[in-house]
Amino acid sequence: MRIVITGGAGFLGMRLARAILARGALTDAHGNVHPVREIVLADIAPARDIGDARVRVVSGDLADPSLVERTIGRDTDSVFHLAAVVSGHAEADFDIGIRVNLDATRALLERCRQLAAPPKFVFASSLAVFGGTLSDPVEDTAPLTPQSSYGTQKAIGELLVYDMTRKGFIDGRSLRLPTVTVRPGKPNKAASSFASGIIREPLAAVEAVCPVAPQTRMWVSSPRAVIANLIIGHEAPASAFALTRSVNVPGLSVSVEEMVAALRRVAGDAVADRVRWQLDPAIDRIVSTWPARFAPTRGLALGMRGDANFDSIVQAYIEEDMPRA
Amino acid sequence: MRIVITGGAGFLGMRLARAILARGALTDAHGNVHPVREIVLADIAPARDIGDARVRVVSGDLADPSLVERTIGRDTDSVFHLAAVVSGHAEADFDIGIRVNLDATRALLERCRQLAAPPKFVFASSLAVFGGTLSDPVEDTAPLTPQSSYGTQKAIGELLVYDMTRKGFIDGRSLRLPTVTVRPGKPNKAASSFASGIIREPLAAVEAVCPVAPQTRMWVSSPRAVIANLIIGHEAPASAFALTRSVNVPGLSVSVEEMVAALRRVAGDAVADRVRWQLDPAIDRIVSTWPARFAPTRGLALGMRGDANFDSIVQAYIEEDMPRA
Repeated sequence: MRIVITGGAGFLGMRLARAILARGALTDAHGNVHPVREIVLADIAPARDIGDARVRVVSGDLADPSLVERTIGRDTDSVFHLAAVVSGHAEADFDIGIRVNLDATRALLERCRQLAAPPKFVFASSLAVFGGTLSDPVEDTAPLTPQSSYGTQKAIGELLVYDMTRKGFIDGRSLRLPTVTVRPGKPNKAASSFASGIIREPLAAVEAVCPVAPQTRMWVSSPRAVIANLIIGHEAPASAFALTRSVNVPGLSVSVEEMVAALRRVAGDAVADRVRWQLDPAIDRIVSTWPARFAPTRGLALGMRGDANFDSIVQAYIEEDMPRA
Repeated sequence: MRIVITGGAGFLGMRLARAILARGALTDAHGNVHPVREIVLADIAPARDIGDARVRVVSGDLADPSLVERTIGRDTDSVFHLAAVVSGHAEADFDIGIRVNLDATRALLERCRQLAAPPKFVFASSLAVFGGTLSDPVEDTAPLTPQSSYGTQKAIGELLVYDMTRKGFIDGRSLRLPTVTVRPGKPNKAASSFASGIIREPLAAVEAVCPVAPQTRMWVSSPRAVIANLIIGHEAPASAFALTRSVNVPGLSVSVEEMVAALRRVAGDAVADRVRWQLDPAIDRIVSTWPARFAPTRGLALGMRGDANFDSIVQAYIEEDMPRA
């Protein structure tokens, strides 16, 4: 099978590609095993070479239909659409958010209509589609009430994915991912960037600022669990999805102070004491609109799983992603 | 003040223009009265001349930013966005639905960002944003769960209107209109077109086909009530709207057989017997996903009102809109 991963130069995209390549094949709803012939990594900048002949790298603006045409060949079987302008960036720059989070999603979906057969389309949505007064925990069927431009653009993507699935243009699945932590590398413009930073930087002997209150709860997932859940979302039969094709992906509900306590247990006082608490109202405003507790009924029924506890998330980062000294 | 009405060549657009011109002014949230200096009627085809020097007519594709720039001047105070590809048409032709219901809405909103001051933006949304399993009656806060491309495109419009209001680009209000009946003129490609046809054609001595089951309930409004409610939605203070800026506009819940019974009471057996019942599965499928009972709490609080009964809707059509013999 031929697979396209947008956001393919990013941390999650690269990791998803590696996981699929390591498996060598994906299974369809009937249990048939399809060897992976090609993975296209598409992103604004070229993905780095991962030394596998099955990988093709495409770079450029995914809102440009001609680039999308080069990315998604007529025999593409599956698209994992991970590319996005993150929450804080989309809030600060409305136009870039619309272009990447809405126009690029549109261009990809339009291209999928032209393929030989309707491809699977796994859309990385977000808990940011929710906000305001919500049930606690948040059900899969909770209203789309985004309180940020990022959440709005993701909610619009979900509506398009569902309508185009209903029309038979694609076989779409919108997976609302928890906040992914611990991400390696540099901070980014996501309002949730600190959730990785307060673990990653202290472990690298660097001070980290936590811009939200210690009691702030978040719905988080390790990269490993998110990758596994993306593949489950892809392999699940269409019939396993309910009305809207949107699923709350299982995660872990944890407060920021519990995150730091886990860091303290795993890495010791000297490391955990490198977290400095300094409220940033702009970030706090966005993060506080996100719900932190979900009833991920559909995702659990599909076989998706969240992490057991935050200690194991910290431990997994140290083992898998932390740069070696 | 300067007002733009999209869909300005259509029945509701023309009627809204006449109602505003007859008033001569609109009132703002502080009770200040603003004389109407200009109404721009914008539509794909030119609006017919209504003999008022305050009216300017613009025609063309509203998804074309250059036309939108000519339509919405920098000193525009208010936009009533009524232009749409109707439900049955958007379902049959996905591309034209996306172009008019999504791209044109985007182009209008983008233009509004460039104005001297954020304009009021009254977006004609629809009960088609709802579908599937819903509470009965449907609350203002019910989830956006459209089951048609038209409803999807209107839901996306609501999300954009709310986000751009939150950002301060516009002062938006999304009014979910009931099915408007009785519309004069010819049938159109709305799945709900029959709701006017089964009254209008028999009164013109023409047989009419009802394509849904007699028990099918609908949420309807006379043109007169809808126009009054659009103006109330425009004049209401921003503070009167709750979180999302979306409002279920009051209407009347009535079954199709009750509509025909009202026609019988008002116009007699010979007229009512011209309705022929013949199920059209394509239309029935769309209409049956629309809810028929609402709790229009916010609209009522704003002062919006539905019609008292269907007899008065038939009577109003005969008095105001029926062609004279």
